[in-house]
Amino acid sequence: MTILSSKDNSNIKNAVRLRKSAKHRRESGLFIAEGVRICIDAMLSKADIDTFFASEKAAAKYAYEFEQLRKYSAKAFVVSDKIFNQICDTESPQGFLCVIKALDKSGSFDKIKTGDKFLALDNLQDPSNLGTILRTAEALNVTGVVLSDDCCDIYSPKVVRGSMGAVFRLPFVVSTSIAEYLNTHSELESYAAVVSSSADKITETSFASPCIVAVGNEGNGLKEDTISACKHKITIPMTGRAESLNAAVAASIIMWEMMK
Amino acid sequence: MTILSSKDNSNIKNAVRLRKSAKHRRESGLFIAEGVRICIDAMLSKADIDTFFASEKAAAKYAYEFEQLRKYSAKAFVVSDKIFNQICDTESPQGFLCVIKALDKSGSFDKIKTGDKFLALDNLQDPSNLGTILRTAEALNVTGVVLSDDCCDIYSPKVVRGSMGAVFRLPFVVSTSIAEYLNTHSELESYAAVVSSSADKITETSFASPCIVAVGNEGNGLKEDTISACKHKITIPMTGRAESLNAAVAASIIMWEMMK
Repeated sequence: MTILSSKDNSNIKNAVRLRKSAKHRRESGLFIAEGVRICIDAMLSKADIDTFFASEKAAAKYAYEFEQLRKYSAKAFVVSDKIFNQICDTESPQGFLCVIKALDKSGSFDKIKTGDKFLALDNLQDPSNLGTILRTAEALNVTGVVLSDDCCDIYSPKVVRGSMGAVFRLPFVVSTSIAEYLNTHSELESYAAVVSSSADKITETSFASPCIVAVGNEGNGLKEDTISACKHKITIPMTGRAESLNAAVAASIIMWEMMK
Repeated sequence: MTILSSKDNSNIKNAVRLRKSAKHRRESGLFIAEGVRICIDAMLSKADIDTFFASEKAAAKYAYEFEQLRKYSAKAFVVSDKIFNQICDTESPQGFLCVIKALDKSGSFDKIKTGDKFLALDNLQDPSNLGTILRTAEALNVTGVVLSDDCCDIYSPKVVRGSMGAVFRLPFVVSTSIAEYLNTHSELESYAAVVSSSADKITETSFASPCIVAVGNEGNGLKEDTISACKHKITIPMTGRAESLNAAVAASIIMWEMMK
């Protein structure tokens, strides 16, 4: 196999652009995953891997995984260690990087079934929070996630990593707004998560099914029109300091109560 | 007020060392907090502020907060914007930084009372996770946190920031090992959080009081001797992918079930 050792190679250039630019990811319908475990995870999740890059060192160190991914991917390249480190997002890259085709996973949303329980995210901004939330949603068996189109990019490298591969498997759909989504899906019982002593406590809420719970932005919570579009308001009762849960923790506790 | 504009000033040198070195924090009994909100929070929490630094810009922009902190702190300095940016940990510093005396907050652990519910952290390594866990513990009114001495430093700038100031208020104690702590506190009903289908489900556990729940390392979970020292094993039942919760989320769901 030829070893790529120039940053000017068009495949490498494309990977670097995909890492840096949400716009390029959107326009090309491609995104990247970095790390041995997550690349293997992409393959096992039957993600459509367009290009697989491995550093010289990693191709030798993870020879078995390298061989599997080389066969599975449409294109595969070995890259000099120096160039590989320059194209990666992480501080200590493990030497595997895949360019993956974004799939339309909105199928699960076409026909809503009894038993379905969705999460809606309204203007969530932090990629670490989004990654953690997707990971939790998958672990707790949430049916799918609806994101408002002003959320951070679900295909950013940080989200892909933080989600531990949930992004390859969990059904999700991006909607212009959560309010619009709710208005066109009135068969869902909808719950707005707010910080308010007058809202229903999640400990006393029996989540109907099919249903959807909306969680908002880290600093500002849900948009007003999202709250209005929901049939119920719910809140996490706190005996200590109120308004003091991290967004990913709040979403996780709500999903926990919804799913258990 | 004189404006410090040299990195060689001994106060500035000390702050930089405190930011970088856990050893220096431990030996001096001092740590730092960065940001307007968190410095104000330290003051409102009656933390013992040894030195307060503000950048020229921030002293003007947050004149009211600057004045309060200047009066409250033992020493206060205005620092040129250029030098301030060099001493800060965050990418876009807000221009406030405090050097704070670490307090002995182990008092709450001397006499354990009915109603007390503690969290034990065994070799937790990620400062973001620790910050988030402390924040959640405070919000949910956990009595206090016991940390094994191989956890990451609770006074690292990332933990202080991520905890949203909980580190100023939440009682905690560092113990040589969680097993040792449990063995010398047999009055506590103790629960080891594990990933195991044979452990008691947290949904079916009625947490006794006083009690303590032990949560382990991000990759490896609890140490064997910690599990052995606990009276019960508990687990988070997951219908989706098991072993796939982020450590801070797992700890938060467990605290939620323990406290609600």
